[in-house]
Amino acid sequence: MASSAELGADRVPRVVRTRADLRDALASSPRPVGLVPTMGALHQGHASLISRARAENATVVVSIFVNPRQFNEAADFAGYPRDEAADLAAAGAAGADVAFIPPVEEMYPAGFQTSVRVGALAEPLEGAARPGHFEGVTTVVAVLFGLAGAERAYFGQKDAQQLLVVRRMAADLAIPTEVVACPIVREADGLAMSSRNALLSPGQRAAAPVVRRALLAAREAFDDGERGGEALRDRMRGVLAGEPLAVPEYVSCADPATLAELGRVEGPALLSMAVRLGSVRLIDNELLP
Amino acid sequence: MASSAELGADRVPRVVRTRADLRDALASSPRPVGLVPTMGALHQGHASLISRARAENATVVVSIFVNPRQFNEAADFAGYPRDEAADLAAAGAAGADVAFIPPVEEMYPAGFQTSVRVGALAEPLEGAARPGHFEGVTTVVAVLFGLAGAERAYFGQKDAQQLLVVRRMAADLAIPTEVVACPIVREADGLAMSSRNALLSPGQRAAAPVVRRALLAAREAFDDGERGGEALRDRMRGVLAGEPLAVPEYVSCADPATLAELGRVEGPALLSMAVRLGSVRLIDNELLP
Repeated sequence: MASSAELGADRVPRVVRTRADLRDALASSPRPVGLVPTMGALHQGHASLISRARAENATVVVSIFVNPRQFNEAADFAGYPRDEAADLAAAGAAGADVAFIPPVEEMYPAGFQTSVRVGALAEPLEGAARPGHFEGVTTVVAVLFGLAGAERAYFGQKDAQQLLVVRRMAADLAIPTEVVACPIVREADGLAMSSRNALLSPGQRAAAPVVRRALLAAREAFDDGERGGEALRDRMRGVLAGEPLAVPEYVSCADPATLAELGRVEGPALLSMAVRLGSVRLIDNELLP
Repeated sequence: MASSAELGADRVPRVVRTRADLRDALASSPRPVGLVPTMGALHQGHASLISRARAENATVVVSIFVNPRQFNEAADFAGYPRDEAADLAAAGAAGADVAFIPPVEEMYPAGFQTSVRVGALAEPLEGAARPGHFEGVTTVVAVLFGLAGAERAYFGQKDAQQLLVVRRMAADLAIPTEVVACPIVREADGLAMSSRNALLSPGQRAAAPVVRRALLAAREAFDDGERGGEALRDRMRGVLAGEPLAVPEYVSCADPATLAELGRVEGPALLSMAVRLGSVRLIDNELLP
């Protein structure tokens, strides 16, 4: 019978809160190291990243940092869910060895003035809708990669553009951390797991699966032979229009390598969208074929 | 009697031209690794960096890359001196084990789109005079640091602001490479060694030591009790005005931590200047006290 340690259950992650303490903790930890960067409010999607990291590495670090630089709306930052005790329990249960939970002034100490920016890949979609968002993401991820020196880092496919942008940054800057993509984890009704789901009212929560339905309707049209990019976008818009609470921000059918919108789908395509339900903004995506 | 290898003389550096080959070369090299980033046209200043790296590390890598992104003038880039054979001999004589000489498309492959930018420290002086220069420097240095994973990297004090900016970037992004500053190496007449000195006409070369004389005049005034920032700048301007071939671009007496211009010198101060002799731009500096 496997021990609880072997199962990865009931671990209590070692909590470190400073850059120096994270370095010290990792200096004496077995390699390879797997890093799971998060903003806390951990759900089953995060747990799947941590479990994957656990399976592939000798040491697993979860970072929990609500990064002010990647929020383009003060209210979104202020309202972002935070629950450290619950996060530690969830990270431990999924197999984390170390939880890095820095205060803002430790990630960005006095005098901090460096930013990392990715170009064209960060411009459309989330980049257009959320000015400054990706520069905040790539800067904090560069710091986390520098600090952890991990062999691998795990990101969810739900944030498809983030994954592309972070992977591009790591390749361009020759950062020796492999960026590993992990599948979207969904609720039973198809809603992609997200920390922001907790902010939905009951009515909004009931309406939220329309996002997934819209993506699946476009996939169905694709499977039936539709290859027009605008026709696929229209298919998604049509489904969203049936839900009065859902306000689309963008609907995209793009080249998954460049994120350029497609006129015709002749190879792989990334269907994606951002939809507001009240003040809560949800994103989701589906890769064709 | 020491062998030539022990003396570090007559080594022939192993030449690598791709990111992958540099990684491979370093994977099998003893640690620690010392990195000396250069743009070639190696002179005794560079040799002093390489010798220092040789003394402090088990493996020494010299990179030779005339980085187009840090040139704000096309003519300066086109005219920058290049002589790979001479550089290899000089790097070998000073003790380099590996010479990394990538073509532009290897440092910036198709699709490269990441930039690293430092804020306030990169704005005055060279940053104001050369728009985009430091973003080019910090981006290429971030790539070199990522590739080499060196324990230490060596930079000359002649490029005082570059040193501050690179050190800031490495600290902010938690890059685990120590940035080591090395003293300015000078010709017998005081002219700071620079690859651009080779571009001076005989008349310009004869006039060039005015830069050093201006800095020393300000130091002398400081040693005699002058503490006014503008008075010290005026002292430098006055000396430069005595040389008709010298056209000052800026003259500075600044806080060496922030590069803010000083009204009064109450602690350390960085005297610095950029001066044009014809189309050749020279910089030099002196740290007070």
